[in-house]
Amino acid sequence: MATVTIIGSGMMGSALAFPARENGHEVRLVGTHLDREIIDACRQTNRHPKLAPVFPAGVRFYQIEEIDGALDGADLVIGGVSSFGVDWFGDFALPRVADGTPVLTVTKGLMDTPDGALLPYPVLWQRKLDQLGKRLPLCAVGGPCTSYELAAHDQTEVAFCGRDAAALLRAKRLMETDYYHISLSKDVTGIESAVALKNGYALGIALTIGLNQARFGDDTLHYNSQAGVFGQALREMKKLLALQGADTPDNLAVGIGDLYVTVYGGRTRLAGILLGRGLSIGETKRELQGVTLESLVVAGRVARALRVRAEKGEIDLNDFPLLMHVDGILTGHKPAQLPWEAFTFENL
Amino acid sequence: MATVTIIGSGMMGSALAFPARENGHEVRLVGTHLDREIIDACRQTNRHPKLAPVFPAGVRFYQIEEIDGALDGADLVIGGVSSFGVDWFGDFALPRVADGTPVLTVTKGLMDTPDGALLPYPVLWQRKLDQLGKRLPLCAVGGPCTSYELAAHDQTEVAFCGRDAAALLRAKRLMETDYYHISLSKDVTGIESAVALKNGYALGIALTIGLNQARFGDDTLHYNSQAGVFGQALREMKKLLALQGADTPDNLAVGIGDLYVTVYGGRTRLAGILLGRGLSIGETKRELQGVTLESLVVAGRVARALRVRAEKGEIDLNDFPLLMHVDGILTGHKPAQLPWEAFTFENL
Repeated sequence: MATVTIIGSGMMGSALAFPARENGHEVRLVGTHLDREIIDACRQTNRHPKLAPVFPAGVRFYQIEEIDGALDGADLVIGGVSSFGVDWFGDFALPRVADGTPVLTVTKGLMDTPDGALLPYPVLWQRKLDQLGKRLPLCAVGGPCTSYELAAHDQTEVAFCGRDAAALLRAKRLMETDYYHISLSKDVTGIESAVALKNGYALGIALTIGLNQARFGDDTLHYNSQAGVFGQALREMKKLLALQGADTPDNLAVGIGDLYVTVYGGRTRLAGILLGRGLSIGETKRELQGVTLESLVVAGRVARALRVRAEKGEIDLNDFPLLMHVDGILTGHKPAQLPWEAFTFENL
Repeated sequence: MATVTIIGSGMMGSALAFPARENGHEVRLVGTHLDREIIDACRQTNRHPKLAPVFPAGVRFYQIEEIDGALDGADLVIGGVSSFGVDWFGDFALPRVADGTPVLTVTKGLMDTPDGALLPYPVLWQRKLDQLGKRLPLCAVGGPCTSYELAAHDQTEVAFCGRDAAALLRAKRLMETDYYHISLSKDVTGIESAVALKNGYALGIALTIGLNQARFGDDTLHYNSQAGVFGQALREMKKLLALQGADTPDNLAVGIGDLYVTVYGGRTRLAGILLGRGLSIGETKRELQGVTLESLVVAGRVARALRVRAEKGEIDLNDFPLLMHVDGILTGHKPAQLPWEAFTFENL
C-alpha cells in the first residue's frame, strides 16, 4: 500500500481518488483555498458535490492549511488544479513536496511566450523547481477522460507523460485499474500539446451544432457539419503538433481522442453551441457565468502564438483557417458562420 | 446548364440530385432493377420515400429499362449503387455510358484479393473498362456525408478523387453549392481506402455504447470509452493507410471525418450497439433484417487481407488489436468486451 496525495479537489482531482483508493492506497484529498466547501461536503457525505458516486471508503479529506500533513510520506502527489491555478501550484504546492516524490498533474493547457512558443505547464513548473534546486519527477496526464465518467468507472484510456521513465512506471502501477488504462510517453511536449491544442477545435465543432439549431430551429444533431469540421481540426492539429516537434501517431491519437470527448463532455461544447446560435462572446460568457471556460483561454493563447509566428514569417495563418476563425469569434471580430470553402483542398 | 444522370436511386444517389438540380442542371434519376417502387414513388410524390425533403422541381425519374434515354447526352454520370451493386454497375451500367463522359461514384468499399491486397472499386471498374477498350474518366466521392443530411442542406465537406484532373474539376464545378463543399485529389487509393477502412472502427466505437448500456442499464452515452476507441482507431487507420501507400494528412482527415459521421449517422452504429449489448452476430443480423450492413462486409474483407499479409510475414496483427477484435466478433469467435490494455502504448 502506498500513499497518494491529491492537491486540488476539483472534479478531476477528486475522480482520481477512485482508482487510487480502489487499488488499496491511502488516499488524501486536499482542497485548495477555493475548495473549502467541497472538503466540508466530502467530510460530511463522502461524496464530491459534483460527482454522482460516493468515494470508496477510507479516502481522507484535508483543508488547505492541513496540506503539510497530507503530503507527509506521500509516494505520489497528484496535482488537480485548473489552468488558473498553475502559478499557485508551482509557487505554493510543489515546494512542499518532498524531494524525489513523483508528481502527476491533470492540468491541461499551454502558455504562450512573447516569441510565439507554446509551453506545456510541466515545463513551466520544472523551471521553478530548477530555481529552487528541487528535484521532483514531474509527470502529467493527457488523453480523453471526463472526471464524472472516470468516477462512474467507465473504460478510460489516458497517457501519462514525463521525462523520468521510472516515475512514469511507478505512477502507472499505482493508478491503473481494470477500467483506467494508462499509456506512457517521455514526449511531454507531444502529449501535453496534443491535449491542449484540441480546445479551439472542440469549440469549432460545437459551433456547427448551434449554427444548425439556429437554422433548423430544432435540437436535431447534424453530423455532416460536425464531421467536416472534425476532419479540418485533424489537419490543423497535425500541423500544430509538427510546429511543436511532436507530430507522431501516438500524440495525434491522444489529441484526437481528447477532441472527441471534449466535443461531447465538456463546457466548451455549451459555449460553442451558444456562439453558433448567434450569441456574442460577451453574451455567451454571461450566460455561462460561474463556469470555468479555461479552454477558451488556452485556444486564445494558441492563436496568439500563431500570429506572432506568422509575423516572423515562420508560418502561414491560411494553414489554420479553423483556429483563426474560432479566435475571431472569441475576440468578437467574426460572426459564427464557418469558412467552409477554406477547409477544402486540391491535390491535383 | 448540363445534364447529370444518376444511376441508382438509393438514398445517397438521390440526395445528390439536390445540389445537381439546384445548380440548374437537368437531373435524371434512374432506379436500378431493385428500385422500381422508389421510382414509382418519386414520380407520384417528387420525394424519395426515405428522404424527408421533396426534390427540387424538375428532377426527372427513370425506370431501369429507360436507362439509355437517361444517359443520352449526359455531361456527368453519378453511380449511386451500394457495395452489392459493384459488379452490376461495372457490367451493366458503365458500358452504356458514352466514351469520355466523367463518372462519379458514391460506393464506398474495398475488395480484397487472394494475396492480401485491398483494391478500391474504381480500380476494379477501370479494369473492366480497359478490357472493353472504353475510356471513361472515373471519379469517386469520399468523406463524411450522410444522405439525409445532404438532402437537408447541411454544410457538408467531401472529397472527389480520380486520375483525371480535368474530370475532377468539371465534376466539382457541376456539383458544388454553398452547402456541398468539394476537395479534389488524384490519390484514388488514398481517399477510397480512408473512407472504407473506417467501417470496422465505427463498429468498434459503437460497441462501447452497447457495452455501457448493458452494464449501466440505461441509455446514457459514455464518451470516455468511445474516445478511447476513437484514438486507437486513428492509430490503426494510419497504419492501414501506410500499407496502402496513402498515409497523408488529407487522406487521414477525410477518413477520420468519415469515421466520426459513421459513428453517429449510420446503420453500423446500431449493429455495434446490439453486439455490445451482448447479442451474437447472428442475433444482430436477425434484429436488423432487411438493413444493408455492407460496412460489416467491408470490415471483414480488410481483416481477411490483413491475415493473409500477416501469414506472409508482411505485417504484425498485434498492430491492429481493435480491427482484429471486431473481426473476431463478426465471425462469432469473440465476445464484445474490448481488449483495452492492447490499446495502450509505451514510448519510454
